Amino acid sequence: MLVNRDFPGFWEATLALMKYHSLLLDAADLCTLIGQLGRDRFMDELIERLETEIRHYDPEVAQVPPRNGVHYRRPEWGLLEAMPAHFGEAGTTVKLVGYHPANPIRYQMPSVVSTIAVFESRTGHLAGVLDGTFLTALRTGAASAVASRVLAAPESGCLGVIGCGAQAVTQVHALTRRFDIAKVIGYDIDDAASASLAERLSFLGVPVEIVDRDGRTALLEESDILCTCTSSVPGEGPVFEDFENRPHLHINAVGSDFDRKFELPRALLERALVCPDFREQAVAEGDCQQLDESGIGPDLWTLIQQANDYAETRNLLTVFDSTGWALEDHVAARMVLDYAKDMSLGRQSAMECVFPDPKNPYSLLASGETSAGTFRAAASPVQD
Amino acid sequence: MLVNRDFPGFWEATLALMKYHSLLLDAADLCTLIGQLGRDRFMDELIERLETEIRHYDPEVAQVPPRNGVHYRRPEWGLLEAMPAHFGEAGTTVKLVGYHPANPIRYQMPSVVSTIAVFESRTGHLAGVLDGTFLTALRTGAASAVASRVLAAPESGCLGVIGCGAQAVTQVHALTRRFDIAKVIGYDIDDAASASLAERLSFLGVPVEIVDRDGRTALLEESDILCTCTSSVPGEGPVFEDFENRPHLHINAVGSDFDRKFELPRALLERALVCPDFREQAVAEGDCQQLDESGIGPDLWTLIQQANDYAETRNLLTVFDSTGWALEDHVAARMVLDYAKDMSLGRQSAMECVFPDPKNPYSLLASGETSAGTFRAAASPVQD
Repeated sequence: MLVNRDFPGFWEATLALMKYHSLLLDAADLCTLIGQLGRDRFMDELIERLETEIRHYDPEVAQVPPRNGVHYRRPEWGLLEAMPAHFGEAGTTVKLVGYHPANPIRYQMPSVVSTIAVFESRTGHLAGVLDGTFLTALRTGAASAVASRVLAAPESGCLGVIGCGAQAVTQVHALTRRFDIAKVIGYDIDDAASASLAERLSFLGVPVEIVDRDGRTALLEESDILCTCTSSVPGEGPVFEDFENRPHLHINAVGSDFDRKFELPRALLERALVCPDFREQAVAEGDCQQLDESGIGPDLWTLIQQANDYAETRNLLTVFDSTGWALEDHVAARMVLDYAKDMSLGRQSAMECVFPDPKNPYSLLASGETSAGTFRAAASPVQD
Repeated sequence: MLVNRDFPGFWEATLALMKYHSLLLDAADLCTLIGQLGRDRFMDELIERLETEIRHYDPEVAQVPPRNGVHYRRPEWGLLEAMPAHFGEAGTTVKLVGYHPANPIRYQMPSVVSTIAVFESRTGHLAGVLDGTFLTALRTGAASAVASRVLAAPESGCLGVIGCGAQAVTQVHALTRRFDIAKVIGYDIDDAASASLAERLSFLGVPVEIVDRDGRTALLEESDILCTCTSSVPGEGPVFEDFENRPHLHINAVGSDFDRKFELPRALLERALVCPDFREQAVAEGDCQQLDESGIGPDLWTLIQQANDYAETRNLLTVFDSTGWALEDHVAARMVLDYAKDMSLGRQSAMECVFPDPKNPYSLLASGETSAGTFRAAASPVQD
């Protein structure tokens, strides 16, 4: 190599390069992390952290621009969206989400796959990269627990579940961590889904009752807390008619995430206090689509930050319109990276190319070649 | 774990999970790759692939939505943008670019840091993650070589360079791969930058002459090809006045990338054939900002696809307005991933969480725990 190492700052730059590692977690790391911590403790901590972050949330500092992405028909119908979100000192997160409906049938892949990149806000340094699919399921559960603690009756014991897919598992898990749930009643339009719910929830040790279409009204009327986590078809909602709810019923509506896709009957929404996770998104994709601006209550963060003002709502009909807030992804991803560091999981890699001589990209080749051993050592799993 | 493995598809899903690895390349991998291949061969191949992809570029298939991101003042002034781009069968790329001007002084980091995530378009699977900063410098050089081959006189021997920073190195390198350059003449407003150019270009074995402000006009008038790669201040351009150019002069203008930031005098642009890399972006950020729609020539892809129609332009004054096209990033990233696979570089990781039971996120914990050994083996560097 003809590049020399005599220019000012070569060694400083090389040292800086070594300092800025990115923590890469694969699926096995994430499993080990949650497995070692225990799923209860993981969920408890996630709920706690989310509540704390929401309490400190400052809309003047945070930025969550609309999603941006590509939607295509070839080679398969699909879309890929980038969701950047900034939370001041706490960092910046970009969630990359793909939706490819042919995946399960043709490629043995889930239709939704996502990856989260976490950045330090001071420098734009890539702090870590990790899966977003598992975290999305977990944080959606945690968000319902946070909202329910403010909106549901503390003594709620009967949890109704409409839609018994993957989301139901983390919804029920999260709620049992904050409420003394005596019974879960589940319903799904697909018998296969409801049939396996009890098995999937067996780790909770809570009785699970499954009802068919005839039992659905009883489920709705008996629930203290209700979770709707259906994949309702856009334009075909709601997923049930209005009913005689318990006066203190709280509903976590998590299935709406698309234009003209919603779950709850409008009449119910109109007599409830409806709290969106993130207003701008909920009016476009959530059950809030069905309401005028004046019919929508406080955002989740307003609710948490002014909890005393909303204390009496625990006795009233309330709805948490959960469309998936970027802050939730951010909190979950940062928490996982923190624990992974503590537990020496994952791989620390110097991903970013920092030119030792800023005026010469090829100066990196010299440093990379001469210090390859050092690079390698630094890129091994952290042992400290 | 209470999750059983008897549900339909458990093993199929686990196998599918193993199949979908993401290739993670750190800075050292990228250095090793370019070092082993040789920077000349790397650049030659990049130019070749870019030209081929541009020849096959189909604007009906490709999608490059506007950048999307967060711009903030706390904890430091900075911005982070996500740039997704889809190219049909060839894949989908998201470039994540941070700009944090306080980095060099306060954090020993470059102000621009970027990471590229490459996805398979069929499934949205994350094919790889790698640094974007080095590749950006390389692909910007390659793009100028591709454009110059259509627009510059084949016998061009004198290469002028205005702005002697990092971009100058890869611009000159790329052009020497396609033209028999007998002499490089460089000028920079900063004496320190021009003083070190000859040293940084010494690997090329081409004479490098540096001129001061008085010699700048001679540089401009003598050039067969000119590269402007300045960091001109928005609102203060152009970086030189109009001059008596050689009739066949071709200019690669690579420094303009911002609102009201441009490099070339308008009078020169008005008598030249001006070809943007990507029209929508060039009219917002490039030298094309100075022109009406009617004053702008064909895009780079039109030029390449209809090269015969533009053969005589090699004898005329031409400008390649290079603002940085997402296709260039895409081609560079895919090429690096291809070579890394062949050369067994980087780390193959199963990053994405695929739930063995799609209805139960926690089913992943069971599989992760029981097959942790398999996961680990699969996540080691590929040896085949």
